[in-house]
Amino acid sequence: MTKLRMGVIGAGLWGNNHAHTFNVLPETELVGVCDLDEARALKMKETSGALHAFTDYNALLSRDDIDAVSVATPDFTHTPIILAALKAGKHVLSEKPLATTVKEAETIAEAAAASKGKLMIDFHNRVNPILAGVRDMVQAGEIGLARHGMARLSNTTFVPFEMLSWASKSSALWFLGSHLVDILRFILDDEVVRVYAVTRAGTLSAGGVDTKDFHVSVLEFAKGTVVTMENSWILSRDNPSLVDFKVELVGEKGQVQADPTHNGGLRRVADGGLKYSDFIGVTPTGATRIGGFVLESIARFVDSVVRDVPLLADAQDGLANTKVLSAIEQSAATGKAVDIR
Amino acid sequence: MTKLRMGVIGAGLWGNNHAHTFNVLPETELVGVCDLDEARALKMKETSGALHAFTDYNALLSRDDIDAVSVATPDFTHTPIILAALKAGKHVLSEKPLATTVKEAETIAEAAAASKGKLMIDFHNRVNPILAGVRDMVQAGEIGLARHGMARLSNTTFVPFEMLSWASKSSALWFLGSHLVDILRFILDDEVVRVYAVTRAGTLSAGGVDTKDFHVSVLEFAKGTVVTMENSWILSRDNPSLVDFKVELVGEKGQVQADPTHNGGLRRVADGGLKYSDFIGVTPTGATRIGGFVLESIARFVDSVVRDVPLLADAQDGLANTKVLSAIEQSAATGKAVDIR
Amino acid sequence: MTKLRMGVIGAGLWGNNHAHTFNVLPETELVGVCDLDEARALKMKETSGALHAFTDYNALLSRDDIDAVSVATPDFTHTPIILAALKAGKHVLSEKPLATTVKEAETIAEAAAASKGKLMIDFHNRVNPILAGVRDMVQAGEIGLARHGMARLSNTTFVPFEMLSWASKSSALWFLGSHLVDILRFILDDEVVRVYAVTRAGTLSAGGVDTKDFHVSVLEFAKGTVVTMENSWILSRDNPSLVDFKVELVGEKGQVQADPTHNGGLRRVADGGLKYSDFIGVTPTGATRIGGFVLESIARFVDSVVRDVPLLADAQDGLANTKVLSAIEQSAATGKAVDIR
Amino acid sequence: MTKLRMGVIGAGLWGNNHAHTFNVLPETELVGVCDLDEARALKMKETSGALHAFTDYNALLSRDDIDAVSVATPDFTHTPIILAALKAGKHVLSEKPLATTVKEAETIAEAAAASKGKLMIDFHNRVNPILAGVRDMVQAGEIGLARHGMARLSNTTFVPFEMLSWASKSSALWFLGSHLVDILRFILDDEVVRVYAVTRAGTLSAGGVDTKDFHVSVLEFAKGTVVTMENSWILSRDNPSLVDFKVELVGEKGQVQADPTHNGGLRRVADGGLKYSDFIGVTPTGATRIGGFVLESIARFVDSVVRDVPLLADAQDGLANTKVLSAIEQSAATGKAVDIR
Repeated sequence: MTKLRMGVIGAGLWGNNHAHTFNVLPETELVGVCDLDEARALKMKETSGALHAFTDYNALLSRDDIDAVSVATPDFTHTPIILAALKAGKHVLSEKPLATTVKEAETIAEAAAASKGKLMIDFHNRVNPILAGVRDMVQAGEIGLARHGMARLSNTTFVPFEMLSWASKSSALWFLGSHLVDILRFILDDEVVRVYAVTRAGTLSAGGVDTKDFHVSVLEFAKGTVVTMENSWILSRDNPSLVDFKVELVGEKGQVQADPTHNGGLRRVADGGLKYSDFIGVTPTGATRIGGFVLESIARFVDSVVRDVPLLADAQDGLANTKVLSAIEQSAATGKAVDIR
Repeated sequence: MTKLRMGVIGAGLWGNNHAHTFNVLPETELVGVCDLDEARALKMKETSGALHAFTDYNALLSRDDIDAVSVATPDFTHTPIILAALKAGKHVLSEKPLATTVKEAETIAEAAAASKGKLMIDFHNRVNPILAGVRDMVQAGEIGLARHGMARLSNTTFVPFEMLSWASKSSALWFLGSHLVDILRFILDDEVVRVYAVTRAGTLSAGGVDTKDFHVSVLEFAKGTVVTMENSWILSRDNPSLVDFKVELVGEKGQVQADPTHNGGLRRVADGGLKYSDFIGVTPTGATRIGGFVLESIARFVDSVVRDVPLLADAQDGLANTKVLSAIEQSAATGKAVDIR
Repeated sequence: MTKLRMGVIGAGLWGNNHAHTFNVLPETELVGVCDLDEARALKMKETSGALHAFTDYNALLSRDDIDAVSVATPDFTHTPIILAALKAGKHVLSEKPLATTVKEAETIAEAAAASKGKLMIDFHNRVNPILAGVRDMVQAGEIGLARHGMARLSNTTFVPFEMLSWASKSSALWFLGSHLVDILRFILDDEVVRVYAVTRAGTLSAGGVDTKDFHVSVLEFAKGTVVTMENSWILSRDNPSLVDFKVELVGEKGQVQADPTHNGGLRRVADGGLKYSDFIGVTPTGATRIGGFVLESIARFVDSVVRDVPLLADAQDGLANTKVLSAIEQSAATGKAVDIR
Repeated sequence: MTKLRMGVIGAGLWGNNHAHTFNVLPETELVGVCDLDEARALKMKETSGALHAFTDYNALLSRDDIDAVSVATPDFTHTPIILAALKAGKHVLSEKPLATTVKEAETIAEAAAASKGKLMIDFHNRVNPILAGVRDMVQAGEIGLARHGMARLSNTTFVPFEMLSWASKSSALWFLGSHLVDILRFILDDEVVRVYAVTRAGTLSAGGVDTKDFHVSVLEFAKGTVVTMENSWILSRDNPSLVDFKVELVGEKGQVQADPTHNGGLRRVADGGLKYSDFIGVTPTGATRIGGFVLESIARFVDSVVRDVPLLADAQDGLANTKVLSAIEQSAATGKAVDIR
């Protein structure tokens, strides 16, 4: 078997997940890693077993011995990298959101259509087993048409203040809402046609991160489903989990409620109060297998290139996602509901 | 001690709670009960130990041996009864919502101000111990200023289809949302200044109850708090409880989450699946005491008349409540956010 | 109405609950309070509105203007006080456990049978609405014969180390297990006939409280039900609640699960992690009513004296309870199961 | 890479999991499958892509082109098959429990020590991510020495009455308790030294399955930990899950609580009440990867043979497990605690 030769651009937390996955999968070989920060690039090369480290993504993209690349840089930097990669004929796995403006997302979608390379967006919650269960249930008709619901994906202040260096250039809406909008489209197999949103600022900016504290939105889907969505970055650090994640739907014939992070599957009561543990994102496995849905999603990209199975989420999914998030920002700014064409 | 002499108008489920309470409390004597349906009036007279039964509320109100009355008729019938009672100088305890139009609520508020009788609205969740705990926590500053939140009070289809004979003249918004809007005003000590709402119909009307299936709303309060609110009458009957009730707030310094009905304090696993039991609404006590917050609320009206302690909720609370609910209906009809003066 | 004239012996946390209740109930007048510590006695007199304070319980018992007394002193001191009160012809409400040896409990039971005074044991969980719900369900046959179950009533180390001054003279078994054994007898309407138990020590004694850390027991009931019981005083203070309380039963036809304290009805996420709030023990009410089941239980004693309704729990219940707890200690000491006649 | 050539003996539910895994893993080739029932053997051959089907396990074991075998037959049939496989020099992966008598387990352990083949017992909960999290926490010292705990692994009557054809030759103790005893040994890194147990029969035998309804046990470990264990096969079918699984430990410094099946991560409210979904046992993945811990455990056996990493659980683990379960049966039969050497 000829292995798929991979490059990873961006050596942050998630770039390392990509690199680890390509190192473990039998179908892939990790050729190069890249980061603007040479020390980070070299460190990821070492921990992941890559052959080469780069500080210029163009240098990586110019290699003939690289077939496909992951783009795991901050949200707002994706566009030129993806465009260059597609132009170079590489297959591309982009972190979410695809882009932070509709115009950029459209340009990428056009480039993807014209390129011989495939483009997948890493909306990994599509293979989160809890949410995949919701999708299966809805698609099987168990709840009938979904009539209304609520969706929450929020973080404690730890994320904007300590985990993300570039939080001020993103927001809970883009960082977390992108997941929710995608997973709702995926579960409902439907498009958002109208949004209304309210936002507030103050807590994060007072702490030196100049972005919105939260967005609260109402999403209307084409088939009639109405969902309230909360994306906040100001949850208390006293929470039992860094993340509060819920998707609940009320249908004509039944309901389904997913709670991937606050469900109490594993509760730790020790120094500092009650804490819940995540056990489905990354799970331990033997040395030759990946474990957990966040790595499974990356592996699905390899499947789609090597075996030509459908992409988990494509450029049109990325574009639709960016349209919804942009409309939410517009609604929050104007105080008016926004229709999405 | 001279006892407060009571009348109860409306012999439905809730009228019977009023009658039972006045029969038990040492400060009250139940003189008369009234219902348009003579059989129901006579039955309540018998079970509650009232002295007289009436079918015309004016006859009851004309009695000199009645000091105060409860109005426990359907929502949309309150206004003429309350106005007549206040005109007759009676103290009045009205079920919620006070009235279903702003104009009616304003007329009642004016009449209450002019009457020697007191008017209390029976927003009993103000003494729901779980929600009173939330109020105490927020008022004590434990979470700082509330920044955002969610509130849900919804029923399975059992309520509109089987429990309420007049469901088509009400809705989940008026029947349930009235509680939520009140309890949020009470907890936050703040007023709603702007609302946006979406509604849908179809399930209830297909079943012969011609009203909205649900309203989903975004409430903005004067101090900046943003709360999403769900009021639905189409929850699945497969739910473990008839009611799904949640109030959650994220504040500057902490969070609080109340779940009065789905918290699993008492879980029954028997014929028909898992069911939760309510144990705080009405609780068993000895024969000379009331038990549970829905009766405690009624007793607070007696306290306010007999001992001159503050009303649990007054005409202004009732008016403010009706304004918010009316604005939600207006927003849902126009697709635009509505400001409330 | 002639009021029942009350005395309260013991001015600790629970004595004050008795005094408060007798001050509020319309049927009672609080005549005297008593504590070995004069300052505590005087303080309780003041806060409760009692007429007199005593430091010698015999002085209180010698009063002709006292009809009934509450004994709310530490567990191991009950016997002489109860015997003196019964001899004086007073009605007696004793805190639980009735006595800490079978011989003492038998002596009390004989004295109660011979006295014109009534003796009730304050097993207040019989009116805990959640557990009363379990009892109702079991007695109604909803789960059929209970086959097996688990019961837990445990505290964090806060209780032995900081709340109870006399913890070293009691244990989680006597302080908490007494509640569980009683409520299981009450729910199942059955008697424990055989026990096996294991205990350990070390954590509490290392902290200066020389008693057992926990007892783990297996209870066999006459009708065949088998229940594991845990009573621990070494739960982590990082717990969301001071108390962990569960009663679960698997029956021939269904199951029932009660979780009065860890059910998440009210969750506080603020300084120090997630905390649950109790809201059914003592709940706020107007000034002339008591609230919460721990006070309701005290009121039931008044009902039984004034209206001659059955006692919530009598001397035989107290004796049976002490027999079981003593047998558990014997089993833990010998490593053998103990039959109870 | 030379592939490990596998055989699977037993074509039930679990045998098919083994076959599927060996078909997917890149390191293995599924050569033969075997079942006494030829139709089942042929069916598994077809669905799993095996090369050959057998009805006599000796025929399968005599093949030189098979390096290793899985034994996935009913519990009580393991011994002769494992002995024959070890004698033939095959590596063996045995389903749990290893054997149902101490004598058989000892014979197997001796044979394993003498064979060039490796023997692993498929205690897959060692890689259940929730329980692996508990193990990690305990081994890291986060809760200090575990002082007491509870463990429950029980099924609704569906399992003995409808899922298992050989339930009358097993019991909840052997089928489920084997998992719990193993996982407690694994988490605590300790041995059970003394047990006491109570059992009851009646419900299952009345339904035609002549085995015990449940065992309730107290386990004492060498380092002092005391754990109550429940294994029941008579849970109500009205439960939200087929399985009720809990492991809770109270340590010197903290507590940990695992609830793999009733945690509400995915709740379905539809036809038939509230149901929870399992999402960690088997999870969907791409066609070339396995998913879920029950398959991961099987893959670990391959790791141990191919890469010589330690076995997940070896013959000594299987022997220790059988000793504890046998002692529990002996205690339940005699009414006395049993020491385990």
